[in-house]
Amino acid sequence: MIPSRVIEQKRDGGAIDGRTLEAFLAAFLDGSVQDYQMSAFLMAVFHRGLDADETEVFVRVMLASGTVLDLSHLPGPRVDKHSTGGVGDKVSLVLAPLAAAMGIFVPMMSGRGLGHTAGTLDKLEAIPGFRTDLSLDEFRIVLEDVGCAMIGQTEEIAPLDRRLYALRDVTATVPIRSLIAASIMSKKLAEGLTGLLLDVKVGAGAFIPQEDGAIELAQTMVGIGVGRGLPTVALLTAMDRPLGYAIGNALETAEAIRCLRGEGPGDLRAIVRIQAAEMLRLAEPRLAEADALGRAESALASGAALERFVRLVEAQGGDTATIDDPDRLSTAPERKHVLADTSGVVLGVAPKVLGQGVVALGGGRVHMDQQPDLGVGFQMHVQPGDHVSPGDRLGTVHARDAGGALIAADMLRSAVTVGNAVEAAELRPLVSHRVDEDGVRLTAPRSVGS
Amino acid sequence: MIPSRVIEQKRDGGAIDGRTLEAFLAAFLDGSVQDYQMSAFLMAVFHRGLDADETEVFVRVMLASGTVLDLSHLPGPRVDKHSTGGVGDKVSLVLAPLAAAMGIFVPMMSGRGLGHTAGTLDKLEAIPGFRTDLSLDEFRIVLEDVGCAMIGQTEEIAPLDRRLYALRDVTATVPIRSLIAASIMSKKLAEGLTGLLLDVKVGAGAFIPQEDGAIELAQTMVGIGVGRGLPTVALLTAMDRPLGYAIGNALETAEAIRCLRGEGPGDLRAIVRIQAAEMLRLAEPRLAEADALGRAESALASGAALERFVRLVEAQGGDTATIDDPDRLSTAPERKHVLADTSGVVLGVAPKVLGQGVVALGGGRVHMDQQPDLGVGFQMHVQPGDHVSPGDRLGTVHARDAGGALIAADMLRSAVTVGNAVEAAELRPLVSHRVDEDGVRLTAPRSVGS
Repeated sequence: MIPSRVIEQKRDGGAIDGRTLEAFLAAFLDGSVQDYQMSAFLMAVFHRGLDADETEVFVRVMLASGTVLDLSHLPGPRVDKHSTGGVGDKVSLVLAPLAAAMGIFVPMMSGRGLGHTAGTLDKLEAIPGFRTDLSLDEFRIVLEDVGCAMIGQTEEIAPLDRRLYALRDVTATVPIRSLIAASIMSKKLAEGLTGLLLDVKVGAGAFIPQEDGAIELAQTMVGIGVGRGLPTVALLTAMDRPLGYAIGNALETAEAIRCLRGEGPGDLRAIVRIQAAEMLRLAEPRLAEADALGRAESALASGAALERFVRLVEAQGGDTATIDDPDRLSTAPERKHVLADTSGVVLGVAPKVLGQGVVALGGGRVHMDQQPDLGVGFQMHVQPGDHVSPGDRLGTVHARDAGGALIAADMLRSAVTVGNAVEAAELRPLVSHRVDEDGVRLTAPRSVGS
Repeated sequence: MIPSRVIEQKRDGGAIDGRTLEAFLAAFLDGSVQDYQMSAFLMAVFHRGLDADETEVFVRVMLASGTVLDLSHLPGPRVDKHSTGGVGDKVSLVLAPLAAAMGIFVPMMSGRGLGHTAGTLDKLEAIPGFRTDLSLDEFRIVLEDVGCAMIGQTEEIAPLDRRLYALRDVTATVPIRSLIAASIMSKKLAEGLTGLLLDVKVGAGAFIPQEDGAIELAQTMVGIGVGRGLPTVALLTAMDRPLGYAIGNALETAEAIRCLRGEGPGDLRAIVRIQAAEMLRLAEPRLAEADALGRAESALASGAALERFVRLVEAQGGDTATIDDPDRLSTAPERKHVLADTSGVVLGVAPKVLGQGVVALGGGRVHMDQQPDLGVGFQMHVQPGDHVSPGDRLGTVHARDAGGALIAADMLRSAVTVGNAVEAAELRPLVSHRVDEDGVRLTAPRSVGS
């Protein structure tokens, strides 16, 4: 294996045979292929792509580079959910304890927020004391006791993926579909699961806004999972508007807690129920869809999910008093309401503008080494389809200071389009497609808040 | 200037504005843009290209990164020639002293052989004692005394180019036309010239075999030179067969010396005369082509060129006795003749096969840090168009040992095609195109050996 020949072959659009690619990746791990050779290779991959066999080699070597959990001693199915990331997506905080309450073990390793989307770890850390840096041993103990545990990707899991990601981040080679898929799947395959649910966001606020690209990503990931014997299902879900009303770490945590109480926004409740039902059916493949939805609804309504969340927060060192009193979460002192100046219908709420607004407020990351301000963000008062009159609140900015509030208020104002109902573009169904090993299926359109 | 944004812009096919690109290259020089970012950028450039403005920025920053010679005190025009490299191309060894004998100062900085083509420095070093590593001060002294001096690219000249080339070499990003042009021109522009002749090889033995690619390279280089006020002319010359009969460092040096004596192969003499005339006309723009050719012929025939060569060898520490007795050059002990086994016409002599044969014999480089065996190579006895009968010598292998000779003899045999004259493909004219600031002109076809 001559590194420059491997790069040359990919540069010219050729497929690299499995043994050669494996040797190339192994040589990168041991330092004999240099970062500057890997980054040139990655840029060639950006232009030429990876086929399914090459992608599988990446997944295999990423997995083999670190620890693969063996959780087979647990007395129940092990199912995780991964989202490709969106604005206002606080589903994991509700879903993990909900699934645990239904007898599913959820060994969830999540990422941090990057760019215009927030991350589950940051939202959890808005709870004072909550530790997302458990060791793998601590993680196992919480998982056994509570049924779910939520941490960051540890050093032991897929170190090749981490090294590649760090390099991609600074060489403009992040948006490569096959590597996004390999990166996600290598981490999820390391969790020792019996089933995996993927939430692939689609729309202006998603990393891959276009539907065809999102479907391809879903198919690639499902193919990788199924190919390695892990039952995997992907749902395409709407990210043409924010999910729920809260955007920003602590605000989203508070909204997730309301959802666990059976309150909270309709769209969030609906998507939580659908995803919980999918996780149940991955655990119990013979379960009918309606029954699965019913069990998810009950676990939420009965308070069982909330009870698991309390246990989770306690087990991971968080202040459980925040659950009854969300004001104890990280907060930002400065509030600024943004009011409608015309009457009409809310035609759209631009998710990316609000996501970038959180970054502008200091609540996000441009680089991985930044520590975001967890209290800032937007508490929206409207969703697309709502009628507003002049003076109605569109949303409230939560900022650290008056200057930030001013800038963010402008962003909020520009994110919300108010107009005549006849101009309204159709919104994406909350869940538009379901992808499993049998292929892609259109799901029945569901209106917002159903 | 955010490095990953610059990479991203090029990745997506955008042009980088001059100030940003300059900052990016400056940051690479000072170490704040990393090798792995530059290599990703270069791979993006491979796929997306550089426009004329971007190429000019590369040239400018490469030049500014090092020393630019000021030779304006010399009492005469300063003209150099650069060849893109071919098999059997020993023209520089004849041309530099020939031009010096006609009153032109030739401050020639050359490269070493790489891949299937040999380099001028290696051929000079086949003369025992010849130093190609003069300091810039020593170089200036030889140039003033002899009228020409021949060294390698020193550390002081265009260090950015050297760093980029080292990176390109190991990341499969060498074949980028704009950067090949920028690399050559930055070094030539640093020589403080008043005129530059470019010899762009075209045909199977050239780095860019196709005529359209070679013309584009010539146009790019002429554009860079003229754009910076340096009168620049490029000739496209034939590399569909070797130039002359000798291939391999010391063998080529010996053939160059024969040419300086007014002997040697007709094709070599012809191309030397044409290129010397072009250099004269760059020095004296009003000179008619026929007069220039006549003066070049006289300087060769009179022995004036040979006399300059003797002074050059002496000034740079070489053993001048080799000039009268070529057996004193580096030699290889093992000889093997390859004979024709049919009668017919030599339809072709594949230059790349012979160039690779020299590498196989140990006389070339695959990596820059190798020290080639200067004595090995091929002394051909035929050129395309010659008639042969069974038992006639096609060529002689000069090898270090019998094993190498055997392999190289097979390569020589496979390089020579003998057949029926009616099958003969047309050979390229020795000089097919001339490119200057007025555009591309077809030159009158010249037959081999004219």
